Amino acid sequence: MMDKGVLTIISGFSGVGKGTLVAKLMEKYDNYALSVSATTRGMREGEEHGKSYFFMNVFEFEDKIQKNQFLEYAKYVNNYYGTPKQYVEDMLERGKDVLLEIEIQGARQVKKMMPEAVSIFVMPPDAQTLRERLTERNTEAEEVINERLRRATVEAEGIEEYDYVLVNDSLQESMEKLHSIIQSSHHQSYRNIDFIKKIREDVKIFTEGE
Amino acid sequence: MMDKGVLTIISGFSGVGKGTLVAKLMEKYDNYALSVSATTRGMREGEEHGKSYFFMNVFEFEDKIQKNQFLEYAKYVNNYYGTPKQYVEDMLERGKDVLLEIEIQGARQVKKMMPEAVSIFVMPPDAQTLRERLTERNTEAEEVINERLRRATVEAEGIEEYDYVLVNDSLQESMEKLHSIIQSSHHQSYRNIDFIKKIREDVKIFTEGE
Repeated sequence: MMDKGVLTIISGFSGVGKGTLVAKLMEKYDNYALSVSATTRGMREGEEHGKSYFFMNVFEFEDKIQKNQFLEYAKYVNNYYGTPKQYVEDMLERGKDVLLEIEIQGARQVKKMMPEAVSIFVMPPDAQTLRERLTERNTEAEEVINERLRRATVEAEGIEEYDYVLVNDSLQESMEKLHSIIQSSHHQSYRNIDFIKKIREDVKIFTEGE
Repeated sequence: MMDKGVLTIISGFSGVGKGTLVAKLMEKYDNYALSVSATTRGMREGEEHGKSYFFMNVFEFEDKIQKNQFLEYAKYVNNYYGTPKQYVEDMLERGKDVLLEIEIQGARQVKKMMPEAVSIFVMPPDAQTLRERLTERNTEAEEVINERLRRATVEAEGIEEYDYVLVNDSLQESMEKLHSIIQSSHHQSYRNIDFIKKIREDVKIFTEGE
C-alpha cells in the first residue's frame, strides 16, 4: 500500500515518561526515526550535538525562522526550540515513521502545516501519580517546578485537540499501544488514495467487460 | 479509561474474505461481539436463526422499520437486510467491541447515526486477485456474478468514505492489523472526554495550591 512514513506528535505532562516510551519503541522496532530538535539553550552534560539537539546560537536560529526552515518553533524560558523541517521530510520520504516529542504550541503548528500528522497525548494513570511526577523531583529548583505546573495547566487545556490519549501505566504495554496506534494510522484511507484509485479503475474495467 | 465498546463497520468487495477475518478475530480475542443482522430472505442450509441472521417476514421487518428499531437497513435483490439497534447498543454498553459486516449503503446510515463508529474497507492485494474473487465462483449463477460486479463498482466509488482500508493478503497478519486498528480506536481523545476532564480538574487544583 503506502510507502511514506507517518509523522507522530507525542506530547504529555512533564515527567509522564514520554522520553522513555519513545526510547523503548525505537529500541524494539526499526521503522522509527526520532526528530532531532534545534535549540539555542546551552548544551548540558551528556548531551550531544545532532543527537540530543542541534545546538545553535540565536542568530542562526532566527535566520532559519526567516527562511521558513522549521516545522514548528517556540521560545521557552528565553530559549528557542524548533523542529527542522527538512530532516523530518527526508525521513518520511524514506518510509520512516518519525516521532516528534513536542509541547502543545508546537503540536498545533505542526498539525496546521501537516494535518496528516498523528498526535498523541501521554497521560499519567491518575491524578496522584501526576502530582508526584510534577512536583517531586527534588533535584529541580522551585522555579522549575512552578514553571512545570504552569505548563501542565496550559497543556491540560488542549488535550482534546490531540487525536489520541495514551495512559502510561505499564511501560511495556503502553509502548506496544503506541506502536499499534502509529501502525494503524498507515491504513487510514486518505493515506492510500493512489491504491484506492487503482483498484477502482480495475473494477471499472472488469464490469465494463473487455 | 473508557469502558464502552467500539462499533466497527467492516465492508469490502465480495469474496475478499471479510467473514473469515471476522471469524478469526473472534476466535482469538474475546472482547468482540458480532452484530447479528435481520433479514427477510429465506434461511439457507446450515444457517441458524439468531446466529446467521434473525429471519423474519416482510411484515415484521417493516414494522420494525416503522418503530425505528434498525441502525441501518436496505433492500437488496427483493429482500430486506438490517441491523437491529438494541442488540448493538447492549453489547457496546457491556464493553464489547461490536463488529458489523455491512454494505456501503448501510455503512453510510450507521455513520450518520453513530459517527463514532470506526469503518474499515477490506481490499484484495491487487486487481488480479480481485477479479478472480469476483468472477470465479463457478457454483454461482451468472446473474449472481453480474450482480456482484455491479455492486463492486458501487462499492469502489465509496472507499474513501471509510476511515481505514485494510489489505487482506495474509489472513493471520490482516486479522492482527484489524485488531490493532480497533483497539487503537479506544484511545481516540473524543472517546475519553470524562477521563481528560478529570485530569484537567486535578491539574487545576495542584497549580492553584491547596
